[in-house]
Amino acid sequence: MKDTLGPMAQGSRTAEVMEAIRRRLATRALAPGERLPSIRRFAGVMGVSPSTVVEAYDRLAAEGVIRSRPGSGFYVVGVAPSLDLRAPGPQRDRAVDPFWVSRQSLDAGAEVLKPGCGWLPPDWMPQTALRRALRQLARAPDALLAEYGSSLGPPRLRRILARHCAEEGLEIGPDALLLTPSGSQSIDLVCRYLLRPGDTVLVDDPCYFNFQALLRVHKVRIVSVPFTASGPDLDLFAAALAEHRPRLYITNSALHNPTGGTLTAQTAHRLLVLAGAHDLTVIEDETFAALEPEPSPRLAVLDGLERVIRIGSFSKTLSAAARCGYVAGPPDLIAALTDLQVATNFGGPSPIAAEIVAAALSDGSYRKHVEGVRRRLSRARKEAAARLADLGITPWLMPRGGFYLWCHLPEGRDAADLSRAALRETVVLAPGNIFSPAQTAAGFMRFNVSQMPERAWQVLAHVLAEPPDRHG
Amino acid sequence: MKDTLGPMAQGSRTAEVMEAIRRRLATRALAPGERLPSIRRFAGVMGVSPSTVVEAYDRLAAEGVIRSRPGSGFYVVGVAPSLDLRAPGPQRDRAVDPFWVSRQSLDAGAEVLKPGCGWLPPDWMPQTALRRALRQLARAPDALLAEYGSSLGPPRLRRILARHCAEEGLEIGPDALLLTPSGSQSIDLVCRYLLRPGDTVLVDDPCYFNFQALLRVHKVRIVSVPFTASGPDLDLFAAALAEHRPRLYITNSALHNPTGGTLTAQTAHRLLVLAGAHDLTVIEDETFAALEPEPSPRLAVLDGLERVIRIGSFSKTLSAAARCGYVAGPPDLIAALTDLQVATNFGGPSPIAAEIVAAALSDGSYRKHVEGVRRRLSRARKEAAARLADLGITPWLMPRGGFYLWCHLPEGRDAADLSRAALRETVVLAPGNIFSPAQTAAGFMRFNVSQMPERAWQVLAHVLAEPPDRHG
Repeated sequence: MKDTLGPMAQGSRTAEVMEAIRRRLATRALAPGERLPSIRRFAGVMGVSPSTVVEAYDRLAAEGVIRSRPGSGFYVVGVAPSLDLRAPGPQRDRAVDPFWVSRQSLDAGAEVLKPGCGWLPPDWMPQTALRRALRQLARAPDALLAEYGSSLGPPRLRRILARHCAEEGLEIGPDALLLTPSGSQSIDLVCRYLLRPGDTVLVDDPCYFNFQALLRVHKVRIVSVPFTASGPDLDLFAAALAEHRPRLYITNSALHNPTGGTLTAQTAHRLLVLAGAHDLTVIEDETFAALEPEPSPRLAVLDGLERVIRIGSFSKTLSAAARCGYVAGPPDLIAALTDLQVATNFGGPSPIAAEIVAAALSDGSYRKHVEGVRRRLSRARKEAAARLADLGITPWLMPRGGFYLWCHLPEGRDAADLSRAALRETVVLAPGNIFSPAQTAAGFMRFNVSQMPERAWQVLAHVLAEPPDRHG
Repeated sequence: MKDTLGPMAQGSRTAEVMEAIRRRLATRALAPGERLPSIRRFAGVMGVSPSTVVEAYDRLAAEGVIRSRPGSGFYVVGVAPSLDLRAPGPQRDRAVDPFWVSRQSLDAGAEVLKPGCGWLPPDWMPQTALRRALRQLARAPDALLAEYGSSLGPPRLRRILARHCAEEGLEIGPDALLLTPSGSQSIDLVCRYLLRPGDTVLVDDPCYFNFQALLRVHKVRIVSVPFTASGPDLDLFAAALAEHRPRLYITNSALHNPTGGTLTAQTAHRLLVLAGAHDLTVIEDETFAALEPEPSPRLAVLDGLERVIRIGSFSKTLSAAARCGYVAGPPDLIAALTDLQVATNFGGPSPIAAEIVAAALSDGSYRKHVEGVRRRLSRARKEAAARLADLGITPWLMPRGGFYLWCHLPEGRDAADLSRAALRETVVLAPGNIFSPAQTAAGFMRFNVSQMPERAWQVLAHVLAEPPDRHG
């Protein structure tokens, strides 16, 4: 499409190009220091003439947003941060940067599909219970709607959580539970309390990508151990304990993210014996527990919260918009984390949000809702696995529950390349290496079976049909 | 009262004593490492025989909660934390420990009065607007109730904030604003990004006590400058910049906490010139801004968010139960803080809570509500000042707005002593030295005029009537 428009329309085209660049800066699709698309290429993308792009880039440069380097194009202006959140060593491919995936998923427009994201679509969530909870809360006592509330978090939700723990055989007192604004913040609080820069932390390979992002904030050394279908490889786990003396091990129980693996009782027991022998503290993240068909062995239950700290949230089966997480651990630790949370947040989650969570969990419809989600996911996993097989993509294992399939790509295909190609067609994928501290999962991809409408399959088929050398 | 009861009743008395100790541990009235009250003293407090207390202490020791040190009594068991949140140097008096005050206020039972706390009573808050907002939200689109939402926070609230900034003459783009779970967390995020252990940070003396608690988490050196009625003492401020080369200055604008002082235009301008000359970054906390009768000079507006970072929340005039804060700053910084917040919290405030805040702020009744609160506070300040004068307590200045009076106690009276005595009568006060990094405010007390029902005055009169040597 050519610019054959008058000066007014020309001006608004320039504004459009400027706005498109600003949007990319805001969503970090373009990061500080990065080169802007070439004039010619971006003119093609925007359907405008190169002179319009030149005008837009010049104006952004005049505003100080970007800077021209003669002979080499335009670059995003940006100071070097004091805290470098990226991996050390050589600059990674942007498609394997965890932040890139998080922000592409969180900040995606309505047109973007997200088979790479970590949550269920909104219409899979218990909307009726949530809306009833909001209407109930509109009649709550004044204090509940206006005050900070207890430093440990609203007692009603803590009682519900303590009851859940007791049902699993984990009897804990009210001083063993702290509510927080999220599962991530639960881990962050524990890390702030336990870790010092330079400490070593053990994680699974692959593991939830944000564990790595979070640990980088704490400036610790990350050591990873391969994860098998039944838990971490215990021989390598033992060797890592002996060699690296890690302070902490962070893992997912119930349904491992991204693999969908599940601890066996034997692995859980042996792991705890090893942890005891090496004075290792364990964070067990049970974020996906509600999606399990039946409860699998839990480190926290076996250990009785002596060296295992349990964390979780309500984001996967209730609402990610409530933002409420928890930590269960020894009362000494909980007391210290409570002070830490008062110092850094003057309290925990939104008491209003925590009450909504408590009300929705107590709603008569919630248990049925979760059972329905499990059945629906079970069907969706089978259907997705079959369609993936048609594309030459095979699940590493067939999980007992949850919404993830961790898959081998066809021989020779690179997940980061495919993800970049899919993003050009507004589909966010989750390439294997964002989960792999050792960067050994370039041939893997994590799919969220609840987030794959027809167009996602079309784009996936399309990017797979292109020869590998076309990407890059 | 003597124990002349049978073995059953004796057993339940022991359980009561154990419960009383547990409660003190849970609220940190007794902290790890601390000595328990003597057998004889606690028997008096509880109205039981010493043998009952011995039995209770022995059982708690058998449970591993406390430990006996022969010849020196019982101590709370507790590991030395890796992260020591208390002030360095000699152990401070517990009544001047900021955590003690925060947690006594946050975790106070219904019977406890809190003239020392930092918020308005629930019935002063816009309950009608909050309840209307909850009912509106019960009809919101599915995605809003279930999804994480944008990494910068819900756009609706960010637009409202940007409009407020524009009304003050601070034009900012949407990429200059990040929503967070609280004002404290806003400061914490900036500190995590900018500070390194061992850096020096400048604060006012006196200043909001939680600034100190938060800075201790960051292991930085705290240097304080005396605060005058018109802002920090600029000569001493300049000297501190030259001598200590601080990386950051954290202050309250609008209505300074605890003094109620207000920056003059001249002080604000000179302060920024000094900051520029020493490459100092400033965090301006405008938490109390809505309570000002007219806006006072703001560093962020004068500076145009070049080296001043604005933070705030909605806890003082809307709801502390929503838990929503913000940071306004240079887009580069905001982008980095956004990544940091994704890494440590996978997003910002509860989107549900942020929508409630947005809806309540947009409610037709909100502006009138705030005007009403200001008028009511103006009366309450005058009345409280008059009654305090009767007790020999005089405000350091009469603030233009807000709910605090920072007061001189009668000659020779110690605020920590009086606070301990008042706490025995279930009234939480805020003794001066918790606000004073230099510990020069033992003769000051901060009163919240909105939290002083008749019994608070009686207890205050009563503890003042006791001779000073009775406390301790």
